[in-house]
Amino acid sequence: MKRVYLDHAATTPVAPEVLEAMKPYFSEKFGNASSLHSFGQEARDALEKARKIVADFINARPNEIIFTSGGTESDNLALKGIAFANKDRGNHIITSKIEHHAVLETCHWLEKSGFKVTYLPVDKEGKINPQDIEKAITKETILISVMHANNEIGTIEPIEEIGKICKKHKVYFHTDAVQSFGKIPIDVRKMNIDLLSASSHKLYGPKGVGLLFIRQDVKIEPIQQGGGHEQGLRSGTENVAGIVGFAKAVELAKTNMKKENEREIKLRDKLINEILKIPGAHLTGSRQERLPFNASFYFDGIEGEALLIRLNEKGIAVSTGSACSSKSLEPSHVLTAIGLKPEQAHGSLRVTLGKDNTEQDIDYTIEQLKNIINSLRKISPFGKW
Amino acid sequence: MKRVYLDHAATTPVAPEVLEAMKPYFSEKFGNASSLHSFGQEARDALEKARKIVADFINARPNEIIFTSGGTESDNLALKGIAFANKDRGNHIITSKIEHHAVLETCHWLEKSGFKVTYLPVDKEGKINPQDIEKAITKETILISVMHANNEIGTIEPIEEIGKICKKHKVYFHTDAVQSFGKIPIDVRKMNIDLLSASSHKLYGPKGVGLLFIRQDVKIEPIQQGGGHEQGLRSGTENVAGIVGFAKAVELAKTNMKKENEREIKLRDKLINEILKIPGAHLTGSRQERLPFNASFYFDGIEGEALLIRLNEKGIAVSTGSACSSKSLEPSHVLTAIGLKPEQAHGSLRVTLGKDNTEQDIDYTIEQLKNIINSLRKISPFGKW
Repeated sequence: MKRVYLDHAATTPVAPEVLEAMKPYFSEKFGNASSLHSFGQEARDALEKARKIVADFINARPNEIIFTSGGTESDNLALKGIAFANKDRGNHIITSKIEHHAVLETCHWLEKSGFKVTYLPVDKEGKINPQDIEKAITKETILISVMHANNEIGTIEPIEEIGKICKKHKVYFHTDAVQSFGKIPIDVRKMNIDLLSASSHKLYGPKGVGLLFIRQDVKIEPIQQGGGHEQGLRSGTENVAGIVGFAKAVELAKTNMKKENEREIKLRDKLINEILKIPGAHLTGSRQERLPFNASFYFDGIEGEALLIRLNEKGIAVSTGSACSSKSLEPSHVLTAIGLKPEQAHGSLRVTLGKDNTEQDIDYTIEQLKNIINSLRKISPFGKW
Repeated sequence: MKRVYLDHAATTPVAPEVLEAMKPYFSEKFGNASSLHSFGQEARDALEKARKIVADFINARPNEIIFTSGGTESDNLALKGIAFANKDRGNHIITSKIEHHAVLETCHWLEKSGFKVTYLPVDKEGKINPQDIEKAITKETILISVMHANNEIGTIEPIEEIGKICKKHKVYFHTDAVQSFGKIPIDVRKMNIDLLSASSHKLYGPKGVGLLFIRQDVKIEPIQQGGGHEQGLRSGTENVAGIVGFAKAVELAKTNMKKENEREIKLRDKLINEILKIPGAHLTGSRQERLPFNASFYFDGIEGEALLIRLNEKGIAVSTGSACSSKSLEPSHVLTAIGLKPEQAHGSLRVTLGKDNTEQDIDYTIEQLKNIINSLRKISPFGKW
């Protein structure tokens, strides 16, 4: 059967070049990077080379990069690490209502530990108003965490403006860049970012690897105790093969980003334009400030999950909401925050493109989606279409 | 140049069978295990199959296995997760002075958070006296954490007896089994273990993967917040390829353990017997209750680091102390705890064997070690030999 993977916001296949780069570090150059002998040295060299590659990519310094097990750990380290290290300065954190669960649930946890968190609303496109952030800052504010781009609706947030406000008010600025890292340009200096989370498996690298950029001189505590790896900020034997793969994925992203984005935007826009011809189809998120690979919709009178299952039967893999909350029956907090009613949110569909998708894939998806929506509406409990 | 890797307690090469098992999960069956479509289903199936394999291996149930990023995370989750979830019952933790830094540093962190920790001494072989544990238990004791086998000196602790005491006093029992898992038999039921940490890269699996066994009905809190993966206890996209590799490594360990241990014990004992013929050479740890692959020594009038460097020049990779503390100038806390003076601890050497080591490797190592010690002693500041 034809299989079309259109869920690249959930995860991506490891690029062949990435796997090739990783291979020597499994069974040949397999040393523990903390070991003093030549096997350890080989591993350590690879680790530091990888660190330089990813640092350069976002205009950071190598000693500002901490490798982690993924985006979730990076978000946890950023938020808890800053909160606990700076609690003498204040106990207030500002974030948005549309952050990933890794940020939101960490904020909820911090609230139980005595911190106060302001969850800012977004407009109907999912955009945060920088002025709202400035207004929310108090003397107690120690950290502002706003994602670079949303994982469900693809909206790109005004990070550079937010960075300026944070700098002006001397408040640390963290951005969860899990969706944008390797997809759109990031310059941590230009954007005034103090901490940035990224995950390898979103950009054709392996799962189980991520990073946290921590600007030099930022006061932060580790959240995982042990042997003191990663400048004492993340104990645990470094996943050398995974980190080497992550760096290779970054190199590929750097080389291919511009051209691949142009290609994906063309395919994405064809998809959006065709899908919006379906009666009762709506785009979610911003049309302009949008990740190149993200197309997200809701359909009146349609259950997103039914759509997902029927598309899956046709070999097409998409998502409704984010993969992380796919087992939940709650309407997506992102779609709720942009003003959708629960029944509208339940009619959502996320199509996220990747490097291997062809125009044929998109044409096939458009065709199948139109057929399925027609057929579902014939049996819809929400009324006639 | 001939290269002989004898630092298997630090890390092991990924077995070829393990890498083969992992390969399909990088670029073909690459789905996010939380996704509802067929790509997600493939990943989920592999994940749950792996969970069953590792659970069976230690007589646990699949729902009692939580996959993590490694031994350090598992130890952190066990200790902090139990401490915070049970603080209404008490604030006292008992551990030993010779635990891995992942346990000790987590305990130090918990002390700063209001918990009290008793660090029990060990005898000169590194053994913990179960009676000391029983005596240390108070009404406030909620957790006892004692490692299964020590990473530096290879001593195997009386886990089963400790388990009985914990059960009798209704105190949770955690064991860090990072060194023993896949090397000597473990039965969590028979040993009355409530929580057990293990790491894939110590048994020819990939780095960046570990597990925490949590007996059903144990009250524990997550320490990493996010999408609620792993039964809500460990958020973050599962590292499917890594986990599949870990499970394959477990299968190989299960099949090969008995025969390989016999082989390694023979090589190890040859090494120990020959090395102890060197004047001023001493075995550290127990001769009987010892990991099959571990041989550890100290040498009067010798710097362990000088020994390591000279052996490295001959292509032989060994360690002095553990890999995790290799960058520290402090004498090993383990060697100090078994009564060694700082100058003795600094003369330590750990040789840890693995499946690919041959008798020729051992003979070569014995020969080189004797030569190097002779030559070092000629220039020793500690006096004549």
